[in-house]
Amino acid sequence: MKKTISVLVENQAGVLNKITGLFSRRAFNIESLAVGVTDDKNISRITIIVDSGNNVVEQVEKQLNKLVDVIKVRTIEEHHMIGRELILIKVSATTRTRQDILNVCQIMGGKIDDISPTSMTLELSDTTEKVNLFEELLRPFSILEVARTGLVALQKGTGGI
Amino acid sequence: MKKTISVLVENQAGVLNKITGLFSRRAFNIESLAVGVTDDKNISRITIIVDSGNNVVEQVEKQLNKLVDVIKVRTIEEHHMIGRELILIKVSATTRTRQDILNVCQIMGGKIDDISPTSMTLELSDTTEKVNLFEELLRPFSILEVARTGLVALQKGTGGI
Repeated sequence: MKKTISVLVENQAGVLNKITGLFSRRAFNIESLAVGVTDDKNISRITIIVDSGNNVVEQVEKQLNKLVDVIKVRTIEEHHMIGRELILIKVSATTRTRQDILNVCQIMGGKIDDISPTSMTLELSDTTEKVNLFEELLRPFSILEVARTGLVALQKGTGGI
Repeated sequence: MKKTISVLVENQAGVLNKITGLFSRRAFNIESLAVGVTDDKNISRITIIVDSGNNVVEQVEKQLNKLVDVIKVRTIEEHHMIGRELILIKVSATTRTRQDILNVCQIMGGKIDDISPTSMTLELSDTTEKVNLFEELLRPFSILEVARTGLVALQKGTGGI
């Protein structure tokens, strides 16, 4: 079962290493990790997806809370979550295939970021499912490169961590 | 000087910890880090932004290349780079302020992800500068929560790592 853990931390050198160390020492595989500053430049939010049982997630939460640089930890339930990720994807493109690629991009709500005589680079931010679908739809055109962020998530409604 | 380092790694537990450890042992501050799978599920791409001199970046590249799980390391020059990040931002919103928030969102090319009687959650993927501007434009409405991914980047044109 996939769980989304949102962690607010002090924005200091070494914090990320302490957190990834906590997971790697216990051999918990991080499925996705995204880290970015919040509106307070001294605080970063790390969103971690782990594929584990409830028991494991509880353990992780406890361990995270013990770290001095950790301000707050919260597990976000899937049905209460707004989760989005971003993909940059470069595909082979010739004058013959450009229109077909453009169609996929428009239907999925993506953007064209770059074009060359033999390639196009597209961008999409959406749910993990939609981003996976976008990648699948572009695979037949031959994918040259992919860069994906991890998932970031906020709780639905006014509440938050 | 900010430098963007793109690293292809084996998708295994503990790899991220080895990489963040390399930075934290040398007290190199990671300004942003994004990790996601590539089109090959066994390979992840980690994009790291460090704010350091050329010398430091060279050192980091060398050290990264020594790690067994690292497949390839490349520094992307800013003028050859397509760099994007994603923000989810929840702001206070009432019937009186909704239209103004909607205007900011439409002008900047963002999306509305969620709405409640007292809040709205918006999404934007763009360059770091545009994402910062989006945040500044929304600040007067009172920001409740922010989740940002790190920057992901690909090289312009057909070439890549």
